[in-house]
Amino acid sequence: MQTKTTIEVRYPDCDMMQVVHHSIYPVWYESARMDFFRKMGFSFSDMNKLSVNPAVVDLHLQFKAPATYPQTLTVVTKIGTFAPRKLQLVYEIFNESGKIINTAETFHIWVGPDGRAYNIEENLPDVYEKIKKAAG
Amino acid sequence: MQTKTTIEVRYPDCDMMQVVHHSIYPVWYESARMDFFRKMGFSFSDMNKLSVNPAVVDLHLQFKAPATYPQTLTVVTKIGTFAPRKLQLVYEIFNESGKIINTAETFHIWVGPDGRAYNIEENLPDVYEKIKKAAG
Amino acid sequence: MQTKTTIEVRYPDCDMMQVVHHSIYPVWYESARMDFFRKMGFSFSDMNKLSVNPAVVDLHLQFKAPATYPQTLTVVTKIGTFAPRKLQLVYEIFNESGKIINTAETFHIWVGPDGRAYNIEENLPDVYEKIKKAAG
Amino acid sequence: MQTKTTIEVRYPDCDMMQVVHHSIYPVWYESARMDFFRKMGFSFSDMNKLSVNPAVVDLHLQFKAPATYPQTLTVVTKIGTFAPRKLQLVYEIFNESGKIINTAETFHIWVGPDGRAYNIEENLPDVYEKIKKAAG
Repeated sequence: MQTKTTIEVRYPDCDMMQVVHHSIYPVWYESARMDFFRKMGFSFSDMNKLSVNPAVVDLHLQFKAPATYPQTLTVVTKIGTFAPRKLQLVYEIFNESGKIINTAETFHIWVGPDGRAYNIEENLPDVYEKIKKAAG
Repeated sequence: MQTKTTIEVRYPDCDMMQVVHHSIYPVWYESARMDFFRKMGFSFSDMNKLSVNPAVVDLHLQFKAPATYPQTLTVVTKIGTFAPRKLQLVYEIFNESGKIINTAETFHIWVGPDGRAYNIEENLPDVYEKIKKAAG
Repeated sequence: MQTKTTIEVRYPDCDMMQVVHHSIYPVWYESARMDFFRKMGFSFSDMNKLSVNPAVVDLHLQFKAPATYPQTLTVVTKIGTFAPRKLQLVYEIFNESGKIINTAETFHIWVGPDGRAYNIEENLPDVYEKIKKAAG
Repeated sequence: MQTKTTIEVRYPDCDMMQVVHHSIYPVWYESARMDFFRKMGFSFSDMNKLSVNPAVVDLHLQFKAPATYPQTLTVVTKIGTFAPRKLQLVYEIFNESGKIINTAETFHIWVGPDGRAYNIEENLPDVYEKIKKAAG
């Protein structure tokens, strides 16, 4: 499973160099990640009800080409690796010409209702099945 | 009582026009407001403990001259008007040459632990006294 | 003429109070304004080519009800008043239930290639006609 | 050479989880980097005059513990590796108790006035000397 999320560059996303500032990309990757989870069948509302969330522990971005305003971008998201307590997502951002301009990996630890690391396989087996299936 | 809060312009605060984007100013005014409350003797931590906060209901900004990077600015904050359930703060931002570049007024409704409008005079008379004294 | 612009609330737009922070709204109003200009026939790219832009000189927002995540909002934008050198836009934000949650007015001075106030009626009569027609 | 840069957490930096959102850290690291360059003797104004800048090509962050509001943090910055066309900076963020809460590495390619990769050693030997000295 891989999802495509559309991103519209906004005017203030660009800096004095006339390109999107590097600090905006983590926000886009989070939007793409939320979209991925929703399409996988475990939405933010579901997480919220269960007080479970995939906390970001590692964020790694590669800048290959700039984004500008106005522009419509596409973030392609898929699962990298997963384990009962961990999840890695990998991403690619394409511009309107189909060129890859940015890639990233985010690593997450599942955090449960008590604020501690959470075993998804044990506690939410149906969600773990969805992750397994999405990872292919 | 009026407070002076120092603001450092950050690189991504500036947009493609090489000046600070207008959406950054409300964040600066909030920093100045928090600083004012703290110096008045009713800090964010106090508000947090009591579950009381001054919700923004009206925000009005006037842009007189641009701010650029790097620059150190000063926000001067004071109380405009106040009432048992309401508060107005007025602000001026000065650049390093002492020129006023931005002015604003924010209107607030005190919100209490139940999420509804809150009478500060009745419920927190000591805080109301501090506001009265700060308003001069 | 009035335009409808769709806004998706993003996770980090919300603050510790679980509602969209007030500093996000000016960014949404700018997106709506850019959309309005584009649909009126005077896009950002046109402005860029001519080095002409509607600088924000006054920003006034009224907060009527909170926005939350996830939520899709609609900004309705139209012209308030206009003159050869000035423009006022008025906005309303509706949530998914059709309730108005925020309103605003922005005042703009047209700035020309020399960085000074610019007479649109004299210098860009076709754009002035479009504004006149859009204002109805 | 290592620099210490003070960062004040701002209210809207925190998200619905009551902690600083992960997208804020790249902005802090940039502030720390600009401070490092200034103290090393090659400030943003110098870069601006020469149309030379260290473009971010890779950004890697590790989240060890959350930051909250209000809090004063310290970013410690130093050079990791360097070459005539490249620079790596490494960072650690400490909270008020002296605990490391975040670490990062940023990789930069020097970009010159023509928008292409730039050899600092050849073109700006005095700056290259400063980098060499700062790297120790």
